[in-house]
Amino acid sequence: MQKQTILTGIRPTGHLHLGHYFGACQNWIKLQEKFDTYIEIADVQALTDNFNNPEKVRNSVKALAIDLLSIGIDPNKATLFIQSMIPEIAELTVFYSNLVTIARLERNPTVKTEIKQKKELFGESGESITYGFLGYPVSQAADITAFKGKLVPVGEDQLPLLEQCREIVHKFNNIYGKTLIEPEAYLSNSSRIKGLDGNEKMGKSLGNAIFLADDEATIKKKIMGAVTDPEKIKIDDPANPDICMVYYYHKLIGNDNIKTVCSECKAGKRGCVACKKELITKMIEFLKPISEKRKYYEKHPEIVDQILKDGTNKARQVASQTIKEVKQSMKINYFN
Amino acid sequence: MQKQTILTGIRPTGHLHLGHYFGACQNWIKLQEKFDTYIEIADVQALTDNFNNPEKVRNSVKALAIDLLSIGIDPNKATLFIQSMIPEIAELTVFYSNLVTIARLERNPTVKTEIKQKKELFGESGESITYGFLGYPVSQAADITAFKGKLVPVGEDQLPLLEQCREIVHKFNNIYGKTLIEPEAYLSNSSRIKGLDGNEKMGKSLGNAIFLADDEATIKKKIMGAVTDPEKIKIDDPANPDICMVYYYHKLIGNDNIKTVCSECKAGKRGCVACKKELITKMIEFLKPISEKRKYYEKHPEIVDQILKDGTNKARQVASQTIKEVKQSMKINYFN
Repeated sequence: MQKQTILTGIRPTGHLHLGHYFGACQNWIKLQEKFDTYIEIADVQALTDNFNNPEKVRNSVKALAIDLLSIGIDPNKATLFIQSMIPEIAELTVFYSNLVTIARLERNPTVKTEIKQKKELFGESGESITYGFLGYPVSQAADITAFKGKLVPVGEDQLPLLEQCREIVHKFNNIYGKTLIEPEAYLSNSSRIKGLDGNEKMGKSLGNAIFLADDEATIKKKIMGAVTDPEKIKIDDPANPDICMVYYYHKLIGNDNIKTVCSECKAGKRGCVACKKELITKMIEFLKPISEKRKYYEKHPEIVDQILKDGTNKARQVASQTIKEVKQSMKINYFN
Repeated sequence: MQKQTILTGIRPTGHLHLGHYFGACQNWIKLQEKFDTYIEIADVQALTDNFNNPEKVRNSVKALAIDLLSIGIDPNKATLFIQSMIPEIAELTVFYSNLVTIARLERNPTVKTEIKQKKELFGESGESITYGFLGYPVSQAADITAFKGKLVPVGEDQLPLLEQCREIVHKFNNIYGKTLIEPEAYLSNSSRIKGLDGNEKMGKSLGNAIFLADDEATIKKKIMGAVTDPEKIKIDDPANPDICMVYYYHKLIGNDNIKTVCSECKAGKRGCVACKKELITKMIEFLKPISEKRKYYEKHPEIVDQILKDGTNKARQVASQTIKEVKQSMKINYFN
């Protein structure tokens, strides 16, 4: 039986951190075993809110590819490709643009939230929102449908984007005849990963992230500065992961000594510094295989290039078949 | 010296009528002698307000090509091409989308007017305006710049579209470095052509048009029904072209007998029926060379197809060079 196609993407705006890894990417490593997996490096989408900083996007594309290969994305199992190299996505975006109203895009909860978060770029009340940014759900619908994606791994907060994609597919098929596959959400049970500072979200811009590419010295420094709040632990619920970030990360990276960490902390037998030192050792251990693979790919950029080229070629073949079918349904295939 | 590039386009939504001919296309026949002329059959743009009627667009593409060849567009001098076959235009559209705000598009006077005219599609107050239609100035900027168009023949009413294109070019060059050519308006002195009913505009949907493809019987019927308002002529200013449409068309198609028409009418020596009959003869005579060329092309659809294929291939080569330069400037050229 043919495997189902799953499509996911990531914006190239920096290195991967533990938030990406545990929040999404770790899951992809499992998915590539079960599904025909497409992973899009979404540079065109990254440009919607980095249009004035293309260097950042450019520099992140290959770095991100190395990150993904280092964590275990296998080019023999998953198709890793660069969005801007698939012109068919832009063509689909333009065609789908006629099937969505401005009002509907402005009502999209995910878009609304993101506009609020980007006041610096789009103004206090979103008055400088660009045409491109408002339309990124349309572009995402193009991403998904170009590769006949049946499943899309999403978190709860991204469900409105998938809903909008399904609406577009539905409308397209209604007007032009059944052509596109209506995608479904593949809800992952992974939740948001907290930052070193206890913030609900680990984020590059929040300065509370451990990157997969961090070296040992950086890891040490970051973990030594992590929030533990030991006072609170002693009074309330000792070693409560909601309170102590060090405990939270012990658990996150799967420290098999976790029970001891907890009991020693509760009994006052383990100081925070010792606990952090153990976390540092475990974290370095955890990141070691990733780090080793990274060294290999960094030494062989030509291999990374070839993987991206091959993935993009493969993805383009699928997208090119889709656009052929789309143009046929839209009756704008003139010479065949 | 290399010829300057001029870019113009027309939506394939029906046959050409005298309004198109005298309002724009006649001018193109002169332009192709002086400039490197690109004529775009803008099917993607036509779909922005005909997305639910793609048959109309499809059926008009080759018919329009035949119309244009019949009036004298010379494929050896002008490049006639189909918009949807140039994916680079869609790619540019997506990139330019980040350089224009929604607010700016909503303020564009041409767009505002058009939305008002399309209440049936976009609602009484434009509440159902689609993302695609609002963005057609962005798509037009892509059309113009894809072919490095320096000049764009426009009427006064389209100046806001060109202005928006210039803004996009300016912003692009500012952010990414000088890449695109800033186009200039090539104002044509031709004005709007009135309809048979005296309406200020000849339009297919207004039912007041003579089509270049009309047969003799249709021409007779249409001209016999044209507005003359003879009462008014006798009282006010006899044979005033603002009042008598028959006189207006005598003049429009360049009847060399025009002075006689005028003086006889004023002197009451010429009845309206006779005057219309003369116009019918002259109109048929005027349309005859066009009609003959049309017959040739209709007999040889393979020649029309080849002209469109060749033009589109040539246009695509230019657009492909442009997108290469654009991606280089945007620093999203990864493997070269």
